[in-house]
Amino acid sequence: MKEVWFYESLFPSVRLGLKVKKTIVSKYSNYQKIKILDTYEFGRVLVLDGIVQTTERDEFIYHEMLSHLPMLSHPHPERVLIIGGGDGGILREVLRYPVKEVFLVEIDEKVIELSKTYLPNICRNSFADRRANIVIDDGADFIKEWKGKFDVVIIDSSDPVGPAKVLFSSKFYQEASNALSNSDGIFVQQTGSSFLQREEFPYVYKRLKKIFPFVNIFLTAVPTYVGGFFSFVFASKGIDPLKIRMSEIERRYKRSKLRTRHYNPGIHYASFVLPTYIKGTAEIK
Amino acid sequence: MKEVWFYESLFPSVRLGLKVKKTIVSKYSNYQKIKILDTYEFGRVLVLDGIVQTTERDEFIYHEMLSHLPMLSHPHPERVLIIGGGDGGILREVLRYPVKEVFLVEIDEKVIELSKTYLPNICRNSFADRRANIVIDDGADFIKEWKGKFDVVIIDSSDPVGPAKVLFSSKFYQEASNALSNSDGIFVQQTGSSFLQREEFPYVYKRLKKIFPFVNIFLTAVPTYVGGFFSFVFASKGIDPLKIRMSEIERRYKRSKLRTRHYNPGIHYASFVLPTYIKGTAEIK
Repeated sequence: MKEVWFYESLFPSVRLGLKVKKTIVSKYSNYQKIKILDTYEFGRVLVLDGIVQTTERDEFIYHEMLSHLPMLSHPHPERVLIIGGGDGGILREVLRYPVKEVFLVEIDEKVIELSKTYLPNICRNSFADRRANIVIDDGADFIKEWKGKFDVVIIDSSDPVGPAKVLFSSKFYQEASNALSNSDGIFVQQTGSSFLQREEFPYVYKRLKKIFPFVNIFLTAVPTYVGGFFSFVFASKGIDPLKIRMSEIERRYKRSKLRTRHYNPGIHYASFVLPTYIKGTAEIK
Repeated sequence: MKEVWFYESLFPSVRLGLKVKKTIVSKYSNYQKIKILDTYEFGRVLVLDGIVQTTERDEFIYHEMLSHLPMLSHPHPERVLIIGGGDGGILREVLRYPVKEVFLVEIDEKVIELSKTYLPNICRNSFADRRANIVIDDGADFIKEWKGKFDVVIIDSSDPVGPAKVLFSSKFYQEASNALSNSDGIFVQQTGSSFLQREEFPYVYKRLKKIFPFVNIFLTAVPTYVGGFFSFVFASKGIDPLKIRMSEIERRYKRSKLRTRHYNPGIHYASFVLPTYIKGTAEIK
């Protein structure tokens, strides 16, 4: 039988190939081409415009890093905004805390609908949680309407091409800053491969640094995101993530009774330690 | 013009694809098929039996981690054994220390010969250094002959299939232990992707743990080694790498006057911090 392979089209000269059992979904929404593939190694895979967003097998790494790092760095997060994240993975993790309300603002309704149907292992029951407010809107428009509302803002978007581009602008970062509840507010965003998208995180870092006194890069490694260390930014007006004591993060982690597969308080700290070439690229002080 | 892509054949259901400018070498040695490709993203790439070994662009990450971690964990390394490493990258890094002698034992002379000719950016002048002894032999045979000789033993081999398989056996680990100079002796080895070769590092960990009281996994992320965190083992009879003070590693690093692109003392420590799923897999105490 002929093998079927999916090749990601994110980079011009490097490709990830995944052997496919079955194409489950392949359709256009108003914003993008959505595919859900069943693969041999990673289970079901969500692909938007040819780019792997998440997979059943390794999603926990990305989702745990982008949720627990900010949630446990905040002393008492009650109101959380997620922009993007239509697969429900970040929402699922955030709802494991005693939060009062979470807004998930996804531009593409189809992503949510298809994730609910075909990626139940990722979203679980998160969309049905009474604390979750699901809004179909452009995150950049939505965020303007809120001042001082959110303790944590998580940008779980695709890369800065297509619909997500506006989520990487200075204007958006200023509005995200305004939407944070107070100086303890925390903003996080995925910024791609530190090696193959090497303009992305320094660009975001510099823009955020004009607005937030504390901006840090943190790293992990995700099997289906090729390109070495995968990067995120952490920004806050009042919280320096490197100044929170390890014992305090451990206390919060214990109190939360989280059972995490990737994240732990040691990883929390280690993820902020940057290789020399990454520090140099971002001119990080 | 038709694009030419090389697809790595390491995993049955996941592939790395690299766009190729030119095939520089493609020949069989007595042991394996050797290719050197010129690629768009990673410069020249050494491929053995279809598997990417190293590339001009990202080799520094792997080579710095596998050399400076053990070299700076040892109080005064004078004699070093490298098994494999025919591209000369580890040798180059080790020779940056005031060592007395280094043995590099490579089974396949062709790898050294072709690396000298076509990968000068990786080996530099390391093969010509008067402290370097280049031996063409099976590392598993070579190591038997030496008792109490080496301060640091570095296994920079391909994966445990084909010629390198013997370098992952209990017998070999016992002989490596015998070849170490004293209880400060340090043994390190690459153990593949923590996610896609998930049997490899727990297997090595368990075998080494029967011989060495201190066995630790350390991690990094290398762009051309797909599969999330890439793993290494560190083993010693007397040195617990987690007990060496950060200030001591910083002192040694400063004294060495190394200018590293990836490694720094912060990364040294952070690389021993393991995600929960990796700790669990290896049942690491």
